[in-house]
Amino acid sequence: MFLNGLIKLETMRTYLIMCCLFVCSWSFADYAIVIHGGAGTITRKNITPEKEKEIKSALEEAVKLGAQLLSDGKTAIEVVEKVVMLMEDSPLFNAGKGAVFNHEGKQEMDACIMDGKDLSVGAVAGVAHLKNPIVGARLVKDSTRHVMLSGKRAEGFCISKGAEYADSSYFFVKSRWDYLQKVLEREKNQSGQNDGGAAYMDEGTLKYGTVGCVVVDKYGNLAAATSTGGLTNKKYGRIGDSPIVGAGTYASNKSCAISCTGTGEFFIRGTIARDIAALMEYKNLSLEEAGKETLQKLTEMKGDGGFIGVDGKGNVIMMFNTEGMYRGYTTHEMEKPVVKVYGD
Amino acid sequence: MFLNGLIKLETMRTYLIMCCLFVCSWSFADYAIVIHGGAGTITRKNITPEKEKEIKSALEEAVKLGAQLLSDGKTAIEVVEKVVMLMEDSPLFNAGKGAVFNHEGKQEMDACIMDGKDLSVGAVAGVAHLKNPIVGARLVKDSTRHVMLSGKRAEGFCISKGAEYADSSYFFVKSRWDYLQKVLEREKNQSGQNDGGAAYMDEGTLKYGTVGCVVVDKYGNLAAATSTGGLTNKKYGRIGDSPIVGAGTYASNKSCAISCTGTGEFFIRGTIARDIAALMEYKNLSLEEAGKETLQKLTEMKGDGGFIGVDGKGNVIMMFNTEGMYRGYTTHEMEKPVVKVYGD
Repeated sequence: MFLNGLIKLETMRTYLIMCCLFVCSWSFADYAIVIHGGAGTITRKNITPEKEKEIKSALEEAVKLGAQLLSDGKTAIEVVEKVVMLMEDSPLFNAGKGAVFNHEGKQEMDACIMDGKDLSVGAVAGVAHLKNPIVGARLVKDSTRHVMLSGKRAEGFCISKGAEYADSSYFFVKSRWDYLQKVLEREKNQSGQNDGGAAYMDEGTLKYGTVGCVVVDKYGNLAAATSTGGLTNKKYGRIGDSPIVGAGTYASNKSCAISCTGTGEFFIRGTIARDIAALMEYKNLSLEEAGKETLQKLTEMKGDGGFIGVDGKGNVIMMFNTEGMYRGYTTHEMEKPVVKVYGD
Repeated sequence: MFLNGLIKLETMRTYLIMCCLFVCSWSFADYAIVIHGGAGTITRKNITPEKEKEIKSALEEAVKLGAQLLSDGKTAIEVVEKVVMLMEDSPLFNAGKGAVFNHEGKQEMDACIMDGKDLSVGAVAGVAHLKNPIVGARLVKDSTRHVMLSGKRAEGFCISKGAEYADSSYFFVKSRWDYLQKVLEREKNQSGQNDGGAAYMDEGTLKYGTVGCVVVDKYGNLAAATSTGGLTNKKYGRIGDSPIVGAGTYASNKSCAISCTGTGEFFIRGTIARDIAALMEYKNLSLEEAGKETLQKLTEMKGDGGFIGVDGKGNVIMMFNTEGMYRGYTTHEMEKPVVKVYGD
């Protein structure tokens, strides 16, 4: 009788503890979201207060959308896709609508999305008619055994699987077009000095236009997504770092989720996104320490740009060696997002 | 007078030591070369003794060429290019002449070359008319600021810089063509079950055809090169791991040079080549330990294939989780190369 009572008491205690744990894990579920919209010589001298306001507002809208979805219990992979879609739809960023023009006066976009839960990943390179290249990347991830599809045939596949088609006129933004003309004119005057693909300054400010989003969701899963129009006047079917796993994009629940922006070639050579994760996995560094060490490496290689990152505990980083980077973040604990454009 | 004598003696001693060091470093200069020609279900049951002899002879020729060049004092980057060129020229391997056919009955080749000295790298993806795709990759590395160029425009650029053009008929090998027809027939009979890009068994043996070479030269520099025709019946402009830095190819003097072959998608998701190097750099593992740990990771991910590697001390690895891998190596200390095809 006494023993029976004891067992019941013990069982009740176990239930109570389990209940408490459930409530704690639910109410304290961590989530965090970080975004970027490109890096470059972003200084107060180069940007009007109106433009700054416009950009900050677009960044804030993107972070808020992500936070809302996360708070609603959406998974990391769904959230990074939706947030990058929103940024692709904005003509302010060099991705989707507003992508820069290549040497032939066309827009060619790259995108990549990676799920840290199972390392599944999809990427498209050199697509011109997917309204949202990141949706194409997601379809490659979910509907094929492949990681990377390129060009017109990639487009055709994605559209056959439900991605929205968009005509070239949809992506057209006049200031981007005018900028290509300026660059072509300058190239003509400097003929012979060009290697056929320099990283031209984009409208004097945003040298490296890319958008990216990294997230940790309530369930502890990480994901990363990156999308870009590449470089103004790019030639020869150049592919940058954005669609390359481990270069411009990486996510693993074992370490962190990373999205980069900058001189893509240095991010590829330095396997920058994977290196931040590898330093955490193999050298037991924190996300911040790993980010600092990798930024140092990038700078030593003479690469320009930056990256955003998040780990499973909701720690976030936004690091860059340029004058500025369009960026923003929030976590489940914050009342409103932080958005920034300059170095300070 | 006495002091003067002492100084002279000291100077002579210094000269003598310098001479000795020079002789030692010259005569003991380490070099090593490892190659692969693809991995798959390579068993005695699947290969005739004649075919085995033919393949071994081609592998031996490639290793010997590399060893000769290294012994002559050529640099790592020159050697990996020349050795991969020779393998591309052989119809036995799925790279250059003898590349497999994609869904449209065309050959689309990818190649990548990386110099461990400065992490400089070049890659081409989806090229159809470069006699030696690896030469194209080298030109991208040396003549542009870019890492990766793709498609027809990449070809045009490489040819304008001196790469040799070759007509489709040059690459044609009848057995590859017949195999595509067989695969297409099978696909027709299984319509609906195909995701548009499975890794079809290539002639029943060499599932994953790729060629690769890694080298440490007399000066301690590492380099890696990989070249492939991809998968039979590949669709949608699929890009595999071979031209992706850190996936199928990687080299850094800090750690090792790696070239991979296998289910490319898993090598991309697992950043396999970079991971072996990262385990050496960040976890202080030996090349062999890092190789074993990474092969384990690949196997856990359910990826098939293998890789070759070399470090600055001339240690070599040739590891795979398939039944066999075409492979060979030699070092400055060995009288003749070792070449193997089966698992034993």
